[in-house]
Amino acid sequence: MEKKEKIIIGVGILITGIAGFLHYSHANAVLGFVVTAAALAFLAMIVGKATEQLGNRLGPGATGVLQSALGNLPELFVCIFALRAGLDKVVQAALIGSILGNSLLVFGLALFIGGIKNGTQYFRSEPPKMIATLMILAFAALAIPTLAHTLHTPAASHINTLNIFVAIVLLLIFVASLYFFIKGDKSVVPEESTEKNANAWSLPLTLIVLAGAGVGAAFVSEWFVDALQPAMKTLGINEVFAGLVIVAIAGNAIENLVGIQLAFKNKSDYAVSVILNSSLQIALGLFPLLVILSFFLGGAILSFVLSPLLLVALALAVIVSAFIVFDGESIWLEGLALICLYCLIAAAFWWG
Amino acid sequence: MEKKEKIIIGVGILITGIAGFLHYSHANAVLGFVVTAAALAFLAMIVGKATEQLGNRLGPGATGVLQSALGNLPELFVCIFALRAGLDKVVQAALIGSILGNSLLVFGLALFIGGIKNGTQYFRSEPPKMIATLMILAFAALAIPTLAHTLHTPAASHINTLNIFVAIVLLLIFVASLYFFIKGDKSVVPEESTEKNANAWSLPLTLIVLAGAGVGAAFVSEWFVDALQPAMKTLGINEVFAGLVIVAIAGNAIENLVGIQLAFKNKSDYAVSVILNSSLQIALGLFPLLVILSFFLGGAILSFVLSPLLLVALALAVIVSAFIVFDGESIWLEGLALICLYCLIAAAFWWG
Amino acid sequence: MEKKEKIIIGVGILITGIAGFLHYSHANAVLGFVVTAAALAFLAMIVGKATEQLGNRLGPGATGVLQSALGNLPELFVCIFALRAGLDKVVQAALIGSILGNSLLVFGLALFIGGIKNGTQYFRSEPPKMIATLMILAFAALAIPTLAHTLHTPAASHINTLNIFVAIVLLLIFVASLYFFIKGDKSVVPEESTEKNANAWSLPLTLIVLAGAGVGAAFVSEWFVDALQPAMKTLGINEVFAGLVIVAIAGNAIENLVGIQLAFKNKSDYAVSVILNSSLQIALGLFPLLVILSFFLGGAILSFVLSPLLLVALALAVIVSAFIVFDGESIWLEGLALICLYCLIAAAFWWG
Repeated sequence: MEKKEKIIIGVGILITGIAGFLHYSHANAVLGFVVTAAALAFLAMIVGKATEQLGNRLGPGATGVLQSALGNLPELFVCIFALRAGLDKVVQAALIGSILGNSLLVFGLALFIGGIKNGTQYFRSEPPKMIATLMILAFAALAIPTLAHTLHTPAASHINTLNIFVAIVLLLIFVASLYFFIKGDKSVVPEESTEKNANAWSLPLTLIVLAGAGVGAAFVSEWFVDALQPAMKTLGINEVFAGLVIVAIAGNAIENLVGIQLAFKNKSDYAVSVILNSSLQIALGLFPLLVILSFFLGGAILSFVLSPLLLVALALAVIVSAFIVFDGESIWLEGLALICLYCLIAAAFWWG
Repeated sequence: MEKKEKIIIGVGILITGIAGFLHYSHANAVLGFVVTAAALAFLAMIVGKATEQLGNRLGPGATGVLQSALGNLPELFVCIFALRAGLDKVVQAALIGSILGNSLLVFGLALFIGGIKNGTQYFRSEPPKMIATLMILAFAALAIPTLAHTLHTPAASHINTLNIFVAIVLLLIFVASLYFFIKGDKSVVPEESTEKNANAWSLPLTLIVLAGAGVGAAFVSEWFVDALQPAMKTLGINEVFAGLVIVAIAGNAIENLVGIQLAFKNKSDYAVSVILNSSLQIALGLFPLLVILSFFLGGAILSFVLSPLLLVALALAVIVSAFIVFDGESIWLEGLALICLYCLIAAAFWWG
Repeated sequence: MEKKEKIIIGVGILITGIAGFLHYSHANAVLGFVVTAAALAFLAMIVGKATEQLGNRLGPGATGVLQSALGNLPELFVCIFALRAGLDKVVQAALIGSILGNSLLVFGLALFIGGIKNGTQYFRSEPPKMIATLMILAFAALAIPTLAHTLHTPAASHINTLNIFVAIVLLLIFVASLYFFIKGDKSVVPEESTEKNANAWSLPLTLIVLAGAGVGAAFVSEWFVDALQPAMKTLGINEVFAGLVIVAIAGNAIENLVGIQLAFKNKSDYAVSVILNSSLQIALGLFPLLVILSFFLGGAILSFVLSPLLLVALALAVIVSAFIVFDGESIWLEGLALICLYCLIAAAFWWG
């Protein structure tokens, strides 16, 4: 284990402890919210590191599957506790907000910072285009319940059935995409971890860290959801904005740094793949999984029926990022415009 | 005439006879519907063969025009009889359903089967992109009456005038596109028929078969429309779903096999051209022609004003298929996602 | 100064004089409108020539900035006077109409005429794609206030704040894009003016012509706006159609000829850049500038909230032109289809 990794785990344990103390001592809601958000980010990072170590023993294809399964674990926990607390609108906003955050804000930052540092950047390989195309397909499928409901079609009165059908179909495509990447042994994410094999963790250590971080994430997620409503009330922030911007960024913060770092190192193809793949996994995996789970959680039912503005914002993000990928060249100006678009969309949801 | 061709014509005559018997003996509606649908598919195939033979005498450009004119003949007859029976909603749904069927289901099957068989497939030549671009332009034109009506603009109270104007403009582009393909002697469809010249039919035989199949298609179309409503009522299927899925697939079934066969043989450029060109001809040719004809048929007036969900489904199909074509590479996973999207859209129209 | 330039300036002065006479003598409204429109076109052309001369002394980057700042001067004046006269719907329609006119009509004419003359045309260089991508981003930003308003979100009751925020963000991107082009010394517009250096105007002459044409444009703009309403009433044309088609074409007429000429000379990359850049400058520069100015003009407040059909027409134009650019090849048939689409959109606004 590297020194850097030890520090991350140490800080993670420390901050999780503080978050627990603040939670059980019913301290100031905003402070508790900020600290649990930070704890969640550190635990997400530790889960990521442990998954990587486990992946080194399994080959690139299986690593991709593991990362898909475990990478979104903290976000999954947060959404589950939020659904149990009846906050389905927050969960919807957080899921769409994660996609917008990746496809506009993080993608924009990657193009902006990468472009300033390295000049014009090129995406020449196929994976970015393929991911962008699949994302458009996923958007089209996701959009159907909202359209059926908003346009007052007869299907609107059978929305639960339609939701379940859409969820099953999306998960089918998700499983097929995992199979594609394992079978094809084409890793969408860069395989830099191979260099770090010298510092490989032992298998028991890896499993202990993974289990510990997983259990920690489950606890912290509950505290995070508990602190969310009072904190937002204190700060005067409405539920949808909280989900769309704050929960979405807290849940993805560390994960997102990877893509920006890759762009900074002029590995723009990898950067784009990592960033857009993150959006795709939410659309094909996390969202439909939560829709199905919500029927068994005893809290609010999660629906694919979004507010029309949320759906249109998603459509804009998906189309805009696809055109930038298909362009094949990017400049910092496009990155800046993406960041600006993210801010404008967030602004439109500011008023509650 | 090849043995295979003789069998097709024989079976076509036989099944047409059975369909006629079932029609005039007022037999079970569902059985009658299924048999007339099969008869229609065989007659469509025979018209296609005869058109090909006629085309061999005329050069590739003129063949394209002939195929455009005669290839949609059975579908044209069905739509005319349906309009005369007052089923304009079924006709609208069948026309949009044909485009969705080609651009999502058949295109998806071609990518899926071709991808499983041949691995990653490439579309490098220009025609697929050009057809996808023209399809987006055709969609934009087609969308205007629905938008004017749904958004309650002043034009909504002059919708017939707007419909006629849109129809004339679309037919103008259609004629220009025929001229482009004849003049340019670039055939969008593959010219494999040249190999079959050894088995060329004589001109009188060709004309007799063409005339016979054409007259047969006219009769069978009427029986098909007659059987449609009682059969759907028996099966509990609503009108729009019947048009969108059942009539659309029955009208295109055989035609569609060609594109899938081409993808199987790894001729992906041709496959994409044939499949998307079929959608384009409906949008630029068949739909506007029927809108104008409907003023003279004495039945229901056919309008470009679609239900909003039908228009959005069309938009999704057109955008999604364009991105896949512009991608330049395709994998079976994209094919699977297209098929899934088709099923989801169909599901949204299931409830009547 | 070349002979041709002297003639243009002479005719410009003459026709401006006639326009002034017709204005102050309260002559026939339609005649006055036509003559002031012609005067405006000539003054726009003279401002363009003088800007070019000034640019020759400053290098390509600064020329681009100057052309951005001064090229839309006559259109800016017309919009200011129209806002002061309370005609904000006309101004909105004229701004969107300018974008539609460039991205559909002028682009279509360039592809059609260029394609007839030169056969298939290719856009291989990066600027056209980059401009098309930025235009999609600009559209997405522009769309947010209309979406927030039309979908009845809470932001709808804070539309002025949202408008100002969107305007500031768009102007920020506009300034960044100017910086990008100066810094990068990549001129989007072709640098043919270098050949004309032999006939360079002296600096005092350039400044006198520029100032004269600028002041003239200010006066003529006021007369044009004055004549607009009575002329449209006489001709039975509604306000929105007048703005969308007539004001938009009058304000861009001469500017647009350049792009078509370039396509005729088979310089299709340059043609596309010039034409689409013109749309982009309106979306990123002129529209947001006028929204902010409108708060200080004492007339109508200009809002980004468009009628839904206007927004959808803009979306269609932006998407369609982007796909044609991304196609990389164009044929006259695509040009024809673009022209047809422009006519259909205009037709949808004909009824008032």
